[in-house]
Amino acid sequence: MSNHPSEKEKEGMLAACLLNVKAKCPLVHNITNYVTVNDVANVLLACGGSPIMSDEPEDVSDITSICGGLNINIGTLNKRSIEAMFVAGKRARELGHVTLLDPVGAGASKLRTETAIRIVEELHPDVIRGNISEIKTLANGCGTTQGVDADAADTVTDENLDAMVSLAKELASRFSCVIAITGAIDLVADAGHCFVIRNGRPEMSRITGTGCQLSGLATAYCVANPDNKLVAAASAVCLMGLAGEIGFANMKEGDGNSTYRNRIIDAIYNMTAEQLEAGAKYEIR
Amino acid sequence: MSNHPSEKEKEGMLAACLLNVKAKCPLVHNITNYVTVNDVANVLLACGGSPIMSDEPEDVSDITSICGGLNINIGTLNKRSIEAMFVAGKRARELGHVTLLDPVGAGASKLRTETAIRIVEELHPDVIRGNISEIKTLANGCGTTQGVDADAADTVTDENLDAMVSLAKELASRFSCVIAITGAIDLVADAGHCFVIRNGRPEMSRITGTGCQLSGLATAYCVANPDNKLVAAASAVCLMGLAGEIGFANMKEGDGNSTYRNRIIDAIYNMTAEQLEAGAKYEIR
Amino acid sequence: MSNHPSEKEKEGMLAACLLNVKAKCPLVHNITNYVTVNDVANVLLACGGSPIMSDEPEDVSDITSICGGLNINIGTLNKRSIEAMFVAGKRARELGHVTLLDPVGAGASKLRTETAIRIVEELHPDVIRGNISEIKTLANGCGTTQGVDADAADTVTDENLDAMVSLAKELASRFSCVIAITGAIDLVADAGHCFVIRNGRPEMSRITGTGCQLSGLATAYCVANPDNKLVAAASAVCLMGLAGEIGFANMKEGDGNSTYRNRIIDAIYNMTAEQLEAGAKYEIR
Repeated sequence: MSNHPSEKEKEGMLAACLLNVKAKCPLVHNITNYVTVNDVANVLLACGGSPIMSDEPEDVSDITSICGGLNINIGTLNKRSIEAMFVAGKRARELGHVTLLDPVGAGASKLRTETAIRIVEELHPDVIRGNISEIKTLANGCGTTQGVDADAADTVTDENLDAMVSLAKELASRFSCVIAITGAIDLVADAGHCFVIRNGRPEMSRITGTGCQLSGLATAYCVANPDNKLVAAASAVCLMGLAGEIGFANMKEGDGNSTYRNRIIDAIYNMTAEQLEAGAKYEIR
Repeated sequence: MSNHPSEKEKEGMLAACLLNVKAKCPLVHNITNYVTVNDVANVLLACGGSPIMSDEPEDVSDITSICGGLNINIGTLNKRSIEAMFVAGKRARELGHVTLLDPVGAGASKLRTETAIRIVEELHPDVIRGNISEIKTLANGCGTTQGVDADAADTVTDENLDAMVSLAKELASRFSCVIAITGAIDLVADAGHCFVIRNGRPEMSRITGTGCQLSGLATAYCVANPDNKLVAAASAVCLMGLAGEIGFANMKEGDGNSTYRNRIIDAIYNMTAEQLEAGAKYEIR
Repeated sequence: MSNHPSEKEKEGMLAACLLNVKAKCPLVHNITNYVTVNDVANVLLACGGSPIMSDEPEDVSDITSICGGLNINIGTLNKRSIEAMFVAGKRARELGHVTLLDPVGAGASKLRTETAIRIVEELHPDVIRGNISEIKTLANGCGTTQGVDADAADTVTDENLDAMVSLAKELASRFSCVIAITGAIDLVADAGHCFVIRNGRPEMSRITGTGCQLSGLATAYCVANPDNKLVAAASAVCLMGLAGEIGFANMKEGDGNSTYRNRIIDAIYNMTAEQLEAGAKYEIR
């Protein structure tokens, strides 16, 4: 995809990614936080993949070897799990497996910032998915992330979109990976192209772990679509956002964020290739 | 509130607490068990707060510094997380942040009893919330808690209510904190006053983690209402109990404890200040 | 049950097991993975039992002492939790408590295989419940488990049923325990008899943790029915499968695996002795 794909070329791209996941049932090794791990497992099963979790340094090399990809999420990192991330990440790299980094809370603590940067430098993840504050922390080597949510000052908006698209491409080039910055507007970029995605609902931020779930999905999508990780990651972002829209449309009086969480995973479980193609709202810059 | 508040003074107290949480979006650092952590995160988001979890000693000082309060729950304590509790608790104290202790299983093991007592003595939590068996263990320095539920012999009833109210006030005075003893009848006391709260449903005990969720809520309520932690904690207790009633009223044929869990969190998500004021059932002694 | 029970003897067996659980409220100590731990806790509450989780070596001896049984699940094992498994397992054995092993991922890594085998050899669990790949790994001392799901080549089918029943009985004899091999057809065997159970739905494999939940249930059922662990474990397997059928029958348009998870636990919460007797589909070989 050396130039912007034509409308004809775009047709069916996302559908193909989804169908590959369902056909190949990618096995994903997750070293992830204990807050949202159950939802990550269920969303991987929902999309057609298969999850396995392991964060003991002595266990992860064997486990990652039988998987197709590795999803590293630093949401509740500790010394043992950090060691496991590097053992698994090096093994995944030796085997040519897809690795994704979700730098949860990078910028909010020294340990998180340093660990995320070390992972980028030493493990060379294929995809980095975070909110804008986390991604800027990786870009700058430091940050001011407030908790696990993006700073308001950092939001991607229509006003700063050109600059943000350039930033995403620049970082993708610098880190030789796909960069996914998610928020009200999602950006998924490699050095040459950036998907600007407008799926999703603001209410998704009132559920814990929609970002973690997306990182799991993006890993599975890249494992099943290894020849085009940009489109694979963008498909996963569209899928998550569209599921948020469908899940919200199914909400009834009295439903809140707990039921919404279930409905989003349910929507991913039921998503067809046609639905994804028809519902995805994106442009490529 | 040096004397019993008049009906006029009481009016709107709980509503004000709820509105402050929604306005201030308190960020709560949770060092909590991995059993119910996802529900704690979702209930904090539901009430209008924001959760962050971290239990690595090297990480917690930074994390607690950016938060407004610290929720310490010993439900699945281990040596690393115990160390993290003290590092975070000392930092929270330095910064004047609200700290809540949920002494899960105090009395059921030596490690839990000793850890809970050390936390009370060294970290001086602003609020302690537990069942009667756990609270009595803190009072007596030892206990006979059977598992994570209160001993039947220990229940707060109308028959022993006067004695229990006195115990709650005495402990609140001794530990210089707010004491919340939850069960069929809930007591929330400082040295001078005790809220006797009769919201809730017995079926809530068939869901794992309603106590843990309440501790998260109470922390957020105290962060957003720092000038009256007694009323803030009592508001959170009323909120949880009322959500249990609303959630139960929304149950349909075939629903069980898993759906009930979702409906309770949903009810907290949708709770208005007016609903809370109208539905709270309490007296102050 | 030295011979095949007659139809008359079988009548009410499962119902009696269920009623004993509800009457005795067995307290189960779980050392289990952090992926599905919340569902394990809720399913134990749903069936009428009570869960407690602890995996700190210094805590587990006290905790297991106040429980009736121990459920060991190696799904996210680490060095600390492995140590805790042995401390708790030895204490449970001293006290004559029921111990169940769920060898999640045995065969998928050296650490999992070796840990599972050491648990069998040193702790002599009363029940081992796993998929066929995991159980074969225990039988052979090594394995080729792909992730946490059974290998397709290993499935129990009508074609290989006789051989599989023999294998289950042989292993039960060799390990002096009840062996539960779960999959499309479930086998629950001691040395002399094997329940062949045909409850359940294929869609249950699209939910994370139905196996972990079943292990929790089987532990509770054995604690409450200590004189016949074979029937107790078989009752739990029928209960889980039947709940899967009832939960599936309650699915509505748009529901997926997340809602299905809730409906299964709900069905266990509402299951009556009569429903279980009427819905269980098994023969004894």
